[in-house]
Amino acid sequence: MISIIIGSNLFTLQVYKFIQIYTNTIPKRIMAKEITSRADNYSQWYNDLVIKAGLADNSAVRGCMVIKPYGYAIWEKMQSILDKKFKETGHSNAYFPLFIPKSFFSKEADHVEGFAKECAVVTHYRLKNDPNGKGVVVDDDAKLEEELIVRPTSETIIWNTYKSWIQSYRDLPILVNQWANVVRWEMRTRLFLRTAEFLWQEGHTAHATKEEAIEETNKMVHVYADFAENYMAVPVIIGNKTANERFAGALDTLCIEALMQDGKALQAGTSHFLGQNFAKAFDVKFASKEGSLDYVWASSWGVSTRLMGALVMAHSDDNGLVLPPKLAPIQVVIVPIFNKAEQLSVISEKVLPIKKQLEARGISVQFDDRDNFKPGFKFAEHELKGIPVRIAIGPRDVDNNTLEIARRDTLEKKVVASDTAVDYIVDLLNDIQKGIYDKAFKYRAEHTFKADTYEEFKQILDEKGGFVLAHWDGTPETETLIKEETKATIRCIPFDNPQENGVCIRTGKPSTQRVLFARAY
Amino acid sequence: MISIIIGSNLFTLQVYKFIQIYTNTIPKRIMAKEITSRADNYSQWYNDLVIKAGLADNSAVRGCMVIKPYGYAIWEKMQSILDKKFKETGHSNAYFPLFIPKSFFSKEADHVEGFAKECAVVTHYRLKNDPNGKGVVVDDDAKLEEELIVRPTSETIIWNTYKSWIQSYRDLPILVNQWANVVRWEMRTRLFLRTAEFLWQEGHTAHATKEEAIEETNKMVHVYADFAENYMAVPVIIGNKTANERFAGALDTLCIEALMQDGKALQAGTSHFLGQNFAKAFDVKFASKEGSLDYVWASSWGVSTRLMGALVMAHSDDNGLVLPPKLAPIQVVIVPIFNKAEQLSVISEKVLPIKKQLEARGISVQFDDRDNFKPGFKFAEHELKGIPVRIAIGPRDVDNNTLEIARRDTLEKKVVASDTAVDYIVDLLNDIQKGIYDKAFKYRAEHTFKADTYEEFKQILDEKGGFVLAHWDGTPETETLIKEETKATIRCIPFDNPQENGVCIRTGKPSTQRVLFARAY
Repeated sequence: MISIIIGSNLFTLQVYKFIQIYTNTIPKRIMAKEITSRADNYSQWYNDLVIKAGLADNSAVRGCMVIKPYGYAIWEKMQSILDKKFKETGHSNAYFPLFIPKSFFSKEADHVEGFAKECAVVTHYRLKNDPNGKGVVVDDDAKLEEELIVRPTSETIIWNTYKSWIQSYRDLPILVNQWANVVRWEMRTRLFLRTAEFLWQEGHTAHATKEEAIEETNKMVHVYADFAENYMAVPVIIGNKTANERFAGALDTLCIEALMQDGKALQAGTSHFLGQNFAKAFDVKFASKEGSLDYVWASSWGVSTRLMGALVMAHSDDNGLVLPPKLAPIQVVIVPIFNKAEQLSVISEKVLPIKKQLEARGISVQFDDRDNFKPGFKFAEHELKGIPVRIAIGPRDVDNNTLEIARRDTLEKKVVASDTAVDYIVDLLNDIQKGIYDKAFKYRAEHTFKADTYEEFKQILDEKGGFVLAHWDGTPETETLIKEETKATIRCIPFDNPQENGVCIRTGKPSTQRVLFARAY
Repeated sequence: MISIIIGSNLFTLQVYKFIQIYTNTIPKRIMAKEITSRADNYSQWYNDLVIKAGLADNSAVRGCMVIKPYGYAIWEKMQSILDKKFKETGHSNAYFPLFIPKSFFSKEADHVEGFAKECAVVTHYRLKNDPNGKGVVVDDDAKLEEELIVRPTSETIIWNTYKSWIQSYRDLPILVNQWANVVRWEMRTRLFLRTAEFLWQEGHTAHATKEEAIEETNKMVHVYADFAENYMAVPVIIGNKTANERFAGALDTLCIEALMQDGKALQAGTSHFLGQNFAKAFDVKFASKEGSLDYVWASSWGVSTRLMGALVMAHSDDNGLVLPPKLAPIQVVIVPIFNKAEQLSVISEKVLPIKKQLEARGISVQFDDRDNFKPGFKFAEHELKGIPVRIAIGPRDVDNNTLEIARRDTLEKKVVASDTAVDYIVDLLNDIQKGIYDKAFKYRAEHTFKADTYEEFKQILDEKGGFVLAHWDGTPETETLIKEETKATIRCIPFDNPQENGVCIRTGKPSTQRVLFARAY
């Protein structure tokens, strides 16, 4: 590749700024090749990728991350698609307090066990100058009467609020969602996958009947599955959690489970049927059409910035991110190959109309005409950042009326006539979206096994990884035993699971269906 | 108005749900007339309005509010318009931790005085079961080595992060914004205007030169002014804060100041030139083009859910909210007047195509065909919620090919031919947007005074309220004195302020310009 740097200041400040938004927070000399390979160390590969592609970084606060502009741009795309889906299904957004009085957690017996333990506790509301020196210290006179918990999830504060919103069946259903930050004091954290603070949405709905609440729970897990498959290009298995893995306070937890490239499963979203548990804990009753006074039925459901981790791990390779076009902040990058200002001028004249046409088709395009980086460096950077399509155009291409078009997922390049380029790229973006999904689907199919004995089960987990369908006797005790012995958990009991007689791999007791095991994030 | 309720279940569940999103959280029997009038008690009027129109409510946590769906829908509109403006001016979003180590605040001397005092302090990270009974208590074994402060503003954590993002002039400018919740432990709180937790955006930019940082500070206060005037329909005065009123840690604070209907001013947005204060506090230097190592220049700027309070107080009346069409979640409501199912069917056939045409023009329309409320009740509810345009249509209108169209701001009604209705409404929405602004502008003009003596100054404040332009000797001491004696503060020194010789109203010392005083929220 020709690559000569010239000194003249060709680019406009505006274009430079635009590019810089997504590049100025990447250390300048880091190239894709400095990423640890998946084969060498999958965990390190993930961490390298998240940091070097400029998605997120560790912060000065233990376990809390900084989501950098490029990472946040992907999260914003996820948010806007999900938010639209929530609104299309009748939900509206609201906002509830960050803090929850400690006593609220004790009101639902299971919930307190699950959530009120590892959490951030606010005990004081004032600092004062340190009488013994410089700096500030906690003012002991400003101790709260009751400690406040930074929300790990908002069922309690929301159901305490719903009590004043709900009197009669006319007030139902309440279909509310909240986009918020939450805090769970995790001991071992990993960027996006498990952080002390994370961003998420939490839907909290209230219904007059059990059936309606169950229907809502079911509807929302399907919204998540649709988003994962059709936008993130991540195939998922929808199913019910076992009692052991249920949300603390739920009667039933539905989930979507995805498989990562290292053969480990990742829970990507959950939807809970809460029964009347929170209505009872916060005394939320409604006058029914028939005149009786009944407890309200509830669901809650959420996805978080954890999806960012799933997105990275499901598709990316040793050169960097591979982003599905529907979630890529920049879908097409154009790299002019030039060594004189006049060349750039000729190239720009040729290629900027194509940029405009692509943008008119709703495609986001970056024209990377920085003159202080070589094309090879730029290519590596764009690969690292997972930009789905790259156009390269040099003086010879201008003469020949051609463009070199490269796709990020397969790294294939093709020379295309300029006047067919726009249609070609529109099709190519669809191909890439589909191609990424198909590849992940194929990987999952190749890494989903049946095991009939415990030996076989353990051997698959150790040697191949992936999902293992195996018989289980249906007891929490056996599930716990298997988890302790193999680190594998039941990810879910898939919807429409085929019924088949067999014996539990661990206890030999009778079983009527295989369930989906895996080691998981 | 004819209003007969029938029992048959005419509406589809979907339409019903849509309407319910914005209505089911309003106590059903509350009518506009139960709002305290502005003349009786302005403060109570505001509180009634916020609660009864379903914008927000107090929560179980002292000083923290619940933003209800209708209020949040307005906030979302504000967010999306502002976010677009930020992106058009080259900014991108990111996310920084909720928690800030206590020691960070001590690094910038002025900042710690301003912000580290009244704040929520996290001291522990675990609860445990109460050994003496039921419930949970703080686990003393889980005390943090260093307390964490829930962010009251993020300069410190962000500049600590920027240290690792900035090495050279090539890394600059950094133009980043964050949408987040912040906490300031306010003692006297009021919904939206002053709450312990509030939602906001905070822009934090880093520049190679002083001039560029000042230009950014200036640019953003104009973005805010444009938003306030052209979307919120609130005229504002742009100016510089005095040293007393500056942001803690800033060299200069620019602001927009609006006047409410009770003659009190409200600061609606601020933009700060931070000089090199935070760069020095967090040791953030960059290699300049010329090879020197210099401290980075900074700006920060923000608006918050306080804007919701400004919006309510600037325009609303004793019947309820008056919303500018550009921020109204529902811009047009259609109320069919019927007492038989067949009538509704005929009316729907007539009016639903108009709804569709309006929606095709980008207008949000609600068809309120609930059969369990009388039209009069609905009218009052829609007035309470500030829906800019109401269409009423009964059987006689169907026969006459007419609609009755009412505008919320002036409460005027007009009968319009159906086939001209769409154009009429599009124009009407523009008229209302302009009319609301003009009314607020006129109010401000009529409530901006000049005072040449201290007696006159105090008399205006007590009897008329509003902005008072008066001479001041330029010292912080005199400003403090005036504040203590009159509760009025200098809202700003307006941009392009006319220079004129005079004497300070309080001290008689010479002055070269009048400054803008008011009592303020």
